[in-house]
Amino acid sequence: MTGHLIEPAIKALIESRNFTALHDLFVEWTPPEIADCIVDFPHEEQAIVFRMLPQTKAADVLEYLDHDAQVIVLKAMGSEAAAKILNDMSDDDRTRFLEELPPAAVTQTLALLTPEERRHAQTLLNYPERSTGRLMTSHFVAVRDDWTVLQVFDHVRKHGKDSETLNVIYVVDDGGKLIDDLRIRELLLRPFNTKIADIRDTRFVALRAADPAAEAAPVFRKYDRSALPVVDSDGRLIGIVTIDDVLDVIEEETTREVQKIGGLEALDEPYTTISLRRMIKKRATWLIVLFLGEMLTATAMQGYNSEIEKAAVLAMFLPLIISSGGNSGSQATTLIIRAMAVGEVGLRDWWKVLRREIGSGAWLGIILGVIGFVRILLWQSLHLYDYGAHFFRIALAVGFALIGVVLWGSVAGSMLPFLLRRCGLDPATSSAPFVATLVDVTGLLIYFNVALVVLRGTVL
Amino acid sequence: MTGHLIEPAIKALIESRNFTALHDLFVEWTPPEIADCIVDFPHEEQAIVFRMLPQTKAADVLEYLDHDAQVIVLKAMGSEAAAKILNDMSDDDRTRFLEELPPAAVTQTLALLTPEERRHAQTLLNYPERSTGRLMTSHFVAVRDDWTVLQVFDHVRKHGKDSETLNVIYVVDDGGKLIDDLRIRELLLRPFNTKIADIRDTRFVALRAADPAAEAAPVFRKYDRSALPVVDSDGRLIGIVTIDDVLDVIEEETTREVQKIGGLEALDEPYTTISLRRMIKKRATWLIVLFLGEMLTATAMQGYNSEIEKAAVLAMFLPLIISSGGNSGSQATTLIIRAMAVGEVGLRDWWKVLRREIGSGAWLGIILGVIGFVRILLWQSLHLYDYGAHFFRIALAVGFALIGVVLWGSVAGSMLPFLLRRCGLDPATSSAPFVATLVDVTGLLIYFNVALVVLRGTVL
Repeated sequence: MTGHLIEPAIKALIESRNFTALHDLFVEWTPPEIADCIVDFPHEEQAIVFRMLPQTKAADVLEYLDHDAQVIVLKAMGSEAAAKILNDMSDDDRTRFLEELPPAAVTQTLALLTPEERRHAQTLLNYPERSTGRLMTSHFVAVRDDWTVLQVFDHVRKHGKDSETLNVIYVVDDGGKLIDDLRIRELLLRPFNTKIADIRDTRFVALRAADPAAEAAPVFRKYDRSALPVVDSDGRLIGIVTIDDVLDVIEEETTREVQKIGGLEALDEPYTTISLRRMIKKRATWLIVLFLGEMLTATAMQGYNSEIEKAAVLAMFLPLIISSGGNSGSQATTLIIRAMAVGEVGLRDWWKVLRREIGSGAWLGIILGVIGFVRILLWQSLHLYDYGAHFFRIALAVGFALIGVVLWGSVAGSMLPFLLRRCGLDPATSSAPFVATLVDVTGLLIYFNVALVVLRGTVL
Repeated sequence: MTGHLIEPAIKALIESRNFTALHDLFVEWTPPEIADCIVDFPHEEQAIVFRMLPQTKAADVLEYLDHDAQVIVLKAMGSEAAAKILNDMSDDDRTRFLEELPPAAVTQTLALLTPEERRHAQTLLNYPERSTGRLMTSHFVAVRDDWTVLQVFDHVRKHGKDSETLNVIYVVDDGGKLIDDLRIRELLLRPFNTKIADIRDTRFVALRAADPAAEAAPVFRKYDRSALPVVDSDGRLIGIVTIDDVLDVIEEETTREVQKIGGLEALDEPYTTISLRRMIKKRATWLIVLFLGEMLTATAMQGYNSEIEKAAVLAMFLPLIISSGGNSGSQATTLIIRAMAVGEVGLRDWWKVLRREIGSGAWLGIILGVIGFVRILLWQSLHLYDYGAHFFRIALAVGFALIGVVLWGSVAGSMLPFLLRRCGLDPATSSAPFVATLVDVTGLLIYFNVALVVLRGTVL
């Protein structure tokens, strides 16, 4: 994509320890490019690169590294150099860095900041975890509505250097209350002597600092913005959130959703760096819950022990039948969880979904039922296996059980997210394994009861 | 979030058919707000609202509606009014609209456009489906490098009205080749008489029109941009892609990933509007594949029929044991698929992942194994069920089988995405149900073989 990256050359320079040439090269590079290049280097080499970089650039590059690399690089640089970089980091990225440190290290790190930056940093850390406030930067440009476009441009030229984005200018009143947001394009398209009061329309979209960060993403999508202002409970402008931080939030939320669907608690840490102990804890909880649920299959089967003793052939098809129900349930629940996540389906659509799932569940059941039925007749007639004298009835029992179990899987799998959401829980909790377990227990009852009806008087 | 929405009042106005008041109200609203408000109205009422709106605003609002609503509204408006709106739509949103129409309707719709807009629209439709070119808009601002900042601002004021974004200005040479991108902030921070040639650095990031749209998202994230230029194979600037379209692509790609993890083909259509027939087709394929795979359990069990006849108690724990393996496999495969999707894990990490999964699989297996073992002893000693004289050995067999099956599930589930990716396939194909089925068949073999060893000479 970027084309001008010359990674093999860099690697050679690193290997030959030619730091002068490396320095001359990196001067030309943008921070994300440098970060991208050194991301896979050993940490000591990363620290060496950092010491070569000018301070402001070092702070920029640091923002693009992951947390562990940040900690190691800062430690390797000594506290004076680290303090300079930390003071130079933009405050949203610094918050992200601080919030992942252990509490003692946070205090230590805050002490390295200048009083002003420390105050900024502490304010941001006071917002709840995963709230919009935590994504905020307080470097933005605010203007008054009696200014002209030219005055705004002059102000931006003088004070805009630190601003996270200049795409949008915010208009505030005397009390610091946000009264409008203006895109730069709106200013550029006007004569220089236009008053802001003549352009602004008091119509603006703002986020609230205490709201969950995940709620910011749909607002960005809806209004097609690259930055949004953040206000406190009194409507005062206290910061802005930029789209790059929201992209990170979207990715984190998707990871949480996917992991829940996979049947575990969200890790909330990268797979590669989470400790084995914490990962086992996150996985064991659900695995044990599912195991205890699945124990009901053993209990249910106790009731059919005599049937299995009479017709062991029934046990033979048990995994096939209950797993088919589990699979159709997984499909249905995943579809509904995702449709809910993107807002295609809401609570009130349950009846519409139920009708659809009865339709598809029945068809899918018939398809699998026919395949199962034919399979048994085929094996019997090809003498691949002998199901006994009543093979036709066994085939019928398996076929009908499949229809029932697949239909039930689709219905249960699709309705569970509604039920969970109705109870105020996250629909993604009805993970594929959870539905599979539920359908295993009930599918077993369906199977044995169908078998009892179809086979009564013959093998049973 | 927006605070100023007054939906109940709107609903009352619609119900009382007070169109004048409605018109006065909507004049004040932004297009996404209007779209959001009318999205749940019946389609006839949506068409009424559209006829009330000024043409440019109508085009803007239309861009925020979903495809079906767009078709119905345009049909209801008659071809002349529809033509005006279609010509006024921004070309990226129009491409999205056109690509979902049946081929005959595309031709019909293109005929409504002015020759210039038609040429634009056809060019964009010529790019492959789901490519970056399809997201492009050709309304951008390009300047030469001998211009001054003031000349650029004048140019923007005159020609920037149609531009999709003015956050970034593109510098091209005489042949239309992209030579730099400059953020507006870079211009705003300079004196007006600065030459572009003195600001530009020939360092820029561009997308290629023929590349998959999904590849654009990481570039936006990496470079924290709200718009990126698109070049053809000769490096000529042919359009720009804005972040709002990329957010849509991210959402679509996530939906595809989640649906694959759930064990079905990606629907590529909303759940609520896909036809039952097409949805059944997307679900049946994988369900049949899984069913045929799961049939191997029946075949495998044929080999253990005499054991089941001798000890029906073995069948009782079968679903419990194989589903535990399936669940741990689902967890592992989901974790790895997601870690691959966000780039945390690459092909070369397979060995590191394997070691982690052997560790967590063994621990998880021991946890479940102990619970299973204790459960059987408990039921026996509380006289809840009688597992016979050899209950202790049965408990041992179940416990050891659980350790083996859960360990195997974690290992198989985590390695499958690597294997698929190694073969050039999408790792998300190793869905939770797919891994569960694989582990069902192999888990059954583990279980019966453990049972044969532990129980030989007693019940078997």
